[in-house]
Amino acid sequence: MKAKIRVLPLGKNLPVKAGANLREALTEAGISLDSPCGGQGTCLKCKVQLSGICEKFTELEREKLSAEELGRGWHLACQVTVEAPGEVLLPEVEVSRAKAGFGLLGEEIPLQPNVCRRHFELSRPTLSDQRADWDRLAEYLEASEPSPVRAELSLLQEISNRLREWNFAGEAVLVGDEVVALEPPDSAKDVLGVALDIGTTTLAAGLVDLDTGKIVGLDAELNPQITFGADVISRIMYTQDGPGKREKLQRELVKGLNQLLLRLCRNTGKERERIFEATVVGNTTMLHSLLGLEALHIALAPYVGGVNRALCIPAEELGLLIHPRGKVYLLPSIASFVGADTVGVILAARLHQTKVPRLAIDIGTNGEVMLATKEGVLTASTAAGPAFEGGRIKFGMRAIKGAISSFQATPSLDYTVIGGTTARGICGSGLIDLVAELFRVGVLDQKGRILLPSEISSASAAELAERVRVRGEEREFIIFKDEEREVTLTQQDVRELQLAKGAIRAGIELLMKEAKVSPDDIQEVLLAGVFGNYINREKAVTLGLIPSFPLEKVHFIGNGAMDGALRALLSLEERRRADKISAQVHHIELSGRPDFEETFLRCLALGN
Amino acid sequence: MKAKIRVLPLGKNLPVKAGANLREALTEAGISLDSPCGGQGTCLKCKVQLSGICEKFTELEREKLSAEELGRGWHLACQVTVEAPGEVLLPEVEVSRAKAGFGLLGEEIPLQPNVCRRHFELSRPTLSDQRADWDRLAEYLEASEPSPVRAELSLLQEISNRLREWNFAGEAVLVGDEVVALEPPDSAKDVLGVALDIGTTTLAAGLVDLDTGKIVGLDAELNPQITFGADVISRIMYTQDGPGKREKLQRELVKGLNQLLLRLCRNTGKERERIFEATVVGNTTMLHSLLGLEALHIALAPYVGGVNRALCIPAEELGLLIHPRGKVYLLPSIASFVGADTVGVILAARLHQTKVPRLAIDIGTNGEVMLATKEGVLTASTAAGPAFEGGRIKFGMRAIKGAISSFQATPSLDYTVIGGTTARGICGSGLIDLVAELFRVGVLDQKGRILLPSEISSASAAELAERVRVRGEEREFIIFKDEEREVTLTQQDVRELQLAKGAIRAGIELLMKEAKVSPDDIQEVLLAGVFGNYINREKAVTLGLIPSFPLEKVHFIGNGAMDGALRALLSLEERRRADKISAQVHHIELSGRPDFEETFLRCLALGN
Repeated sequence: MKAKIRVLPLGKNLPVKAGANLREALTEAGISLDSPCGGQGTCLKCKVQLSGICEKFTELEREKLSAEELGRGWHLACQVTVEAPGEVLLPEVEVSRAKAGFGLLGEEIPLQPNVCRRHFELSRPTLSDQRADWDRLAEYLEASEPSPVRAELSLLQEISNRLREWNFAGEAVLVGDEVVALEPPDSAKDVLGVALDIGTTTLAAGLVDLDTGKIVGLDAELNPQITFGADVISRIMYTQDGPGKREKLQRELVKGLNQLLLRLCRNTGKERERIFEATVVGNTTMLHSLLGLEALHIALAPYVGGVNRALCIPAEELGLLIHPRGKVYLLPSIASFVGADTVGVILAARLHQTKVPRLAIDIGTNGEVMLATKEGVLTASTAAGPAFEGGRIKFGMRAIKGAISSFQATPSLDYTVIGGTTARGICGSGLIDLVAELFRVGVLDQKGRILLPSEISSASAAELAERVRVRGEEREFIIFKDEEREVTLTQQDVRELQLAKGAIRAGIELLMKEAKVSPDDIQEVLLAGVFGNYINREKAVTLGLIPSFPLEKVHFIGNGAMDGALRALLSLEERRRADKISAQVHHIELSGRPDFEETFLRCLALGN
Repeated sequence: MKAKIRVLPLGKNLPVKAGANLREALTEAGISLDSPCGGQGTCLKCKVQLSGICEKFTELEREKLSAEELGRGWHLACQVTVEAPGEVLLPEVEVSRAKAGFGLLGEEIPLQPNVCRRHFELSRPTLSDQRADWDRLAEYLEASEPSPVRAELSLLQEISNRLREWNFAGEAVLVGDEVVALEPPDSAKDVLGVALDIGTTTLAAGLVDLDTGKIVGLDAELNPQITFGADVISRIMYTQDGPGKREKLQRELVKGLNQLLLRLCRNTGKERERIFEATVVGNTTMLHSLLGLEALHIALAPYVGGVNRALCIPAEELGLLIHPRGKVYLLPSIASFVGADTVGVILAARLHQTKVPRLAIDIGTNGEVMLATKEGVLTASTAAGPAFEGGRIKFGMRAIKGAISSFQATPSLDYTVIGGTTARGICGSGLIDLVAELFRVGVLDQKGRILLPSEISSASAAELAERVRVRGEEREFIIFKDEEREVTLTQQDVRELQLAKGAIRAGIELLMKEAKVSPDDIQEVLLAGVFGNYINREKAVTLGLIPSFPLEKVHFIGNGAMDGALRALLSLEERRRADKISAQVHHIELSGRPDFEETFLRCLALGN
């Protein structure tokens, strides 16, 4: 008997067998809960809020959870046995991870990966059949492969002894036309792939079982390069500091990816050596950094990178710790500031196949704007800066425990903190809410100035006005304060957000102008990005981040870039589509336009 | 005005411009004389005997050459200015090198190498043409390449700075579809390739200018692996001695190849880094050893190797010191004891296209026999052993200075020593002559026994009989003796030669039986091998090494294996032919035949 479980806020329905363990059932459906203890109930990271599903608490839950938590229906997913239908609400930070590329379009991708497992049973050599071992295996495989197979020296060096150990039967794992591993028959070991999204601030990984096409785990981590500069330009400048800097950044990035993969594999009980292919998206600078390419010319007019084409590189050359003969496939980029991440979004959202005008915005350290019409797709890149990911914001932080993630100005203030703890900082969605709401009630003027209590006329803002503090030249708005700490929004923070917002909005305006479409023509607006899902659409309009579209036209697609990388992992057909997108999408270089500056300056104002 | 020069013993006619330097003219024609001094007249290695051509001696020649040498017309080729037609006789050891693959069939091979140089002039990037650097170059090259081009990471890492240094123009060197080097425009640097023949005993290399297709130098060297075993079986057994032995043999072999290349490049004024591709032939065991493959199963029934197919391997992986992104192309083998060297001979001699029965014998440590009819080519491998290359022969040596290379039994004895010095040992051709002649005059009986003076009846052998010495059980024939040293032929040496001769002859007999042809049907007999050229055909018949063919049907083709490697270097079409040969040639496993032993035993007898 199966119980129907609704997973919130994903809005996904899962049929789960009664008696199943909830954490395992979620993992199997691709919703990975962080659980470093492996389900033993000790790390408390898999806390979920239930309604229905299971009415009892285990002894361990009673011991580990507070009375208040128990009263509000919080459980440890690893301790829950599914008994009845119901709803499960995931903690916000976990949703962020689960959303990192989780089958966004609800569309099944036909499984046609570049990695495949082939069982073989060879005839044994005799005096009348003296074909060499590799020739024998290759001929067997080629009977059903489209092209000749090949192998690296290290595999050929061992093939003779392996085949004899296994009596000439076994399994071959191929990546493309290369046999990368030989295994005993029915080894039943996993064949995995990983999709990687390399953001300027955040690294995300999605681990996939390539036999079934199922996502077995998702995770994210800070890009360790942030200590060398918050945005791509400062990273590029760092590489020019002296010899070896480029290599240093490359090593840091790969170290971060390896740590992420290690944790992801540990949490899912998988082995890194069973990952045979990684597909990679990211902005062009990050991809250059991963490859150790000179990226200087990305930063200098006319902004030309080293490589935009798709590439396949041996993992070992990059230092990525997957199978030693595994491969890394980088999706193609479009232009120096419109990378493979944007190709991923276009691929995931099927923008290249649209018949009606659709707008997509991928919000990260760079904001990429895509406008698709039946004539084709236009893209532009905007230097949003790291504000949305917590960078250069006094109390900025990622969307993890302790971050203010939404904000509402009632006569007083009302905000939510991820994890339900006291506030430690502000994440991207919280920042948008804060500025939008303070602008709406009149604590900020249209130019983004924090007004003094004396300047605030609106009655509804009276209570909030008291929270404005002036120290010398600097004004700030106090959100939270107790004996130990405070969280504030500074005037400088507002300026940073204005720059980001102005850049993205200007991109939207100029693409619409280029394509000769008005906001009314646009049938759908897609918000993508690691934190895209948590933006309050209404407040984004209030702020002027996007034009005032009817809200029902605005949809979230989560990390569309990661979704593109997953698609490329699961299907060669999707890779071919990515190549076409890279070649056909038309990139508009905003900095080359005479109307850019005027538009940008106009868009800096709040509400505009 | 051109003077016609006949080059002996090659029998080649060269038109040479009057006034040209003789050494340079020979080199240009692919006849490389060892000249470590680079033509300065100090190393004395380019000594040649002239008739006509140049009547005067230079002062340097008068100083360096003995009166006797001057009297007999010896010159230093580097000092000779061609003035008139005439003949030049090359010193024997140099001929051996010059013959190593010297356009044997007198046929021009259309130049279609896998390595090519492409000039490029790219449009400079602008704001309206922001293609990435690699994409820009690749698109340029692909306009005239049959398939997409690719590049290794190390090249992509530098492309952006190089293109800007050179103002977006330069030269690209491609190996197959891979861009392996970028160079400034009109760098005018060489683009070289090298053909390698890896024999059990001898390594040979032919350096080729791939712009012109001309051979710029040839050289040979002992295989340093011989200290680990004289034949392939003992080498394979050595690798089973313990861990790391296979790797050790691989390193030794590569070290030997690197030394050979270093000398070859130094002597020709070339740089190893300008060699972009090496093509390799050799017996299957040597190719396994080069690759570090397990070769044990070559030695055990049913005699199956790891790889027979053609392979392309990065030179760096093998440790071969050519261009760091250069490639090594191994020609395919046919069977475990019929390697790429045999494919090379078949390719060079065009045996796969024959309309009449033709026999070819490649004599080395293994003797490969090929019988071509219009039905196809049959091959067999015979364990000739190292006798022909000096192995297991008491005074055995390679065909270098001091080796007895031919022998004639007059009533007394008459022999020639390479370099005209006193005899130090016996090379392969000398050994055949010795045994054949001693058998002819009756010092050896048909069973190969050295007869005692008392047993020798023939009057013509009376003088020679005195040279037979008996020490205990061991008999030997004294060829040369002075106060310091002696050179003898022992009873054991004769046995070794009989084993080699018996194996090869049995292979010939069994292939003729298999193909149902008689010696009379065979229209041509080709003798190949590094020393094949120096075998006296008549004596080979006397010995019974080959059936008694009319001598005019027997031709020497020198190192046919090397010729095949050169062809593969010069032409992709030839590589495709080699693949076909490897797939279509029918290998006869002699050890699997009930009639082998009887045939072999019969063929052990001299004269048979």
